[in-house]
Amino acid sequence: MALRTPYLMFLGDAPDQLAAKTAAGIAYWRPEMSRGQFRLPGCRADLGLPDMTIEAAAAAGIGTVIIGVANRGGFLGEGWEVPLVEALERGMDLASGLHRRLGEVPALRDAAARRGRNLIDVRHPTRDFAVASGVKRPGKRLLTVGTDCSCGKMFTALALEREMRSRGLDAEFRATGQTGIFIAGDGVSIDAVVADFIPGAVEWLSPAADPDHWDVIEGQGSLFHASYAGVSLGLLHGAQPDALVMCHEPTRTHMRGLRHFPVPDLALCIERNLEAARLTNPAVRCIGVSVNTDALDLGAARDFLRRTEDVLRLPCTDPVRTGVGPLVDRLSG
Amino acid sequence: MALRTPYLMFLGDAPDQLAAKTAAGIAYWRPEMSRGQFRLPGCRADLGLPDMTIEAAAAAGIGTVIIGVANRGGFLGEGWEVPLVEALERGMDLASGLHRRLGEVPALRDAAARRGRNLIDVRHPTRDFAVASGVKRPGKRLLTVGTDCSCGKMFTALALEREMRSRGLDAEFRATGQTGIFIAGDGVSIDAVVADFIPGAVEWLSPAADPDHWDVIEGQGSLFHASYAGVSLGLLHGAQPDALVMCHEPTRTHMRGLRHFPVPDLALCIERNLEAARLTNPAVRCIGVSVNTDALDLGAARDFLRRTEDVLRLPCTDPVRTGVGPLVDRLSG
Repeated sequence: MALRTPYLMFLGDAPDQLAAKTAAGIAYWRPEMSRGQFRLPGCRADLGLPDMTIEAAAAAGIGTVIIGVANRGGFLGEGWEVPLVEALERGMDLASGLHRRLGEVPALRDAAARRGRNLIDVRHPTRDFAVASGVKRPGKRLLTVGTDCSCGKMFTALALEREMRSRGLDAEFRATGQTGIFIAGDGVSIDAVVADFIPGAVEWLSPAADPDHWDVIEGQGSLFHASYAGVSLGLLHGAQPDALVMCHEPTRTHMRGLRHFPVPDLALCIERNLEAARLTNPAVRCIGVSVNTDALDLGAARDFLRRTEDVLRLPCTDPVRTGVGPLVDRLSG
Repeated sequence: MALRTPYLMFLGDAPDQLAAKTAAGIAYWRPEMSRGQFRLPGCRADLGLPDMTIEAAAAAGIGTVIIGVANRGGFLGEGWEVPLVEALERGMDLASGLHRRLGEVPALRDAAARRGRNLIDVRHPTRDFAVASGVKRPGKRLLTVGTDCSCGKMFTALALEREMRSRGLDAEFRATGQTGIFIAGDGVSIDAVVADFIPGAVEWLSPAADPDHWDVIEGQGSLFHASYAGVSLGLLHGAQPDALVMCHEPTRTHMRGLRHFPVPDLALCIERNLEAARLTNPAVRCIGVSVNTDALDLGAARDFLRRTEDVLRLPCTDPVRTGVGPLVDRLSG
């Protein structure tokens, strides 16, 4: 199910930049794959990529049109179908991160069948996974975990991959969510796997490797999130991580989507993740904390990082403001 | 998807009693629903129920034929198809706990369609569930949890339901696995639910109820099982239990199916289940331990229960040998 590159970002009539956040993530992390954007009249998102017609995209050798945009009104927005059918007719694949399947739209299904093109729904795993064996696999693994959902686990993993590679380490990002899958060109949308097979899916996603190879696995959810903790725990057990990086957003007042649930204490959250991870890798350690300080001014951000470092005695960095160098320093230790 | 009772147990050519353990569980807990058994030549299982032909089953008003037997050689054993088609022709439904779907067998699919009968695969949820809200629901809930898989969680829950009802409590068993679903006539095979929706499925399975009503929810897996812990954690969060009963098999030397994983310490396992459960119900308490002492002689069993009671300061009972009375005593406390 690996995606054909390069990509054209289909932004449709996105009402604002936030609605195009999947596409923006891909363009940020994989500029070399992101060749252009397609926008309909009224589109208020802009990735700063060249605007392309479908015809121009075909001429430019685009492999896949990425529907990386949320449409509140329904599945596909008004006026989306015609250009998407044209993309299939001109030999491109379509890939979507939406919950509903592209094949549910008869015009897309028929055009794809007629032209032998692929409709790829990255939220829906296309293969079966085995129950996890729990047997320790060779190779090294780093997993990003979090105090909550949406606090920087994918961003941190990609920043770590980049920094590790710049130091000559053999590192590979392993995607477990839709945006990550578009970025990696492959992966497993782990929250869509049947419950019994989550750790097995991670064993498949991050298979046995050379002893010096690092898989940098994108975490999901939080052990302390009442809706998603089971996903996080299965991912943790299947990943068998040698290293954990705890991701945190310090201004959040409650768990995402759960107004009555407080964010867990950072030290307790690290402790419980380590304890659970030891079940499948007794040598696991937490190498530091990745803090999304975007909502703080620079002074407050520095204060928070310094104070947290003092309390936890672990490197605390913001991957955007201060980089992940101090975390990677600890991997050789 | 509630099953039509009474049941005919289809034992096929089961090679031994163990192969018919689902059917045996149903016959043990729901004798009033289990009217007969159907056996092919060579069948070595016997539930002690009247042997019935399909014709006699129809005359006796059987609602559903239960395929409660594992067949190692393949999906349906040799000679199974003819009597199963006849059952559909004579107006009965078929229900199966096997992984593969009954509808994959063309003869069954066609006969069911022709006669408007149901093919029910209890391992496969037939509805979609929402993401859990985490909002506390009225009514009381007891969840059986375990140090490992297959250590008595369903049996204990059913024994508790029986004992609670005998004391006039308003109690209802809630099934989360295939045998439990046949026994309850309804339920959700929780390990077959997509990961993101496990706690939501439990919120659906055990909805808001009268303040004095108890749902007795069948647990699955173990927080300390490397293959299934995510399922157990999602179930724990969705159940919002007021009471936990820890189930344990004292002679097991390693986790089921995982030779290199030791069974967790009982006290630590209780502690971690309580801590995780507090996320959605801060008032949760463990009311005792249910021990399957079947592999011990009576003296050793009594010793184990007494010693464990002293260490944990909680009632420890074997639901078969000593009954679950001491656990139910604690519910009023």
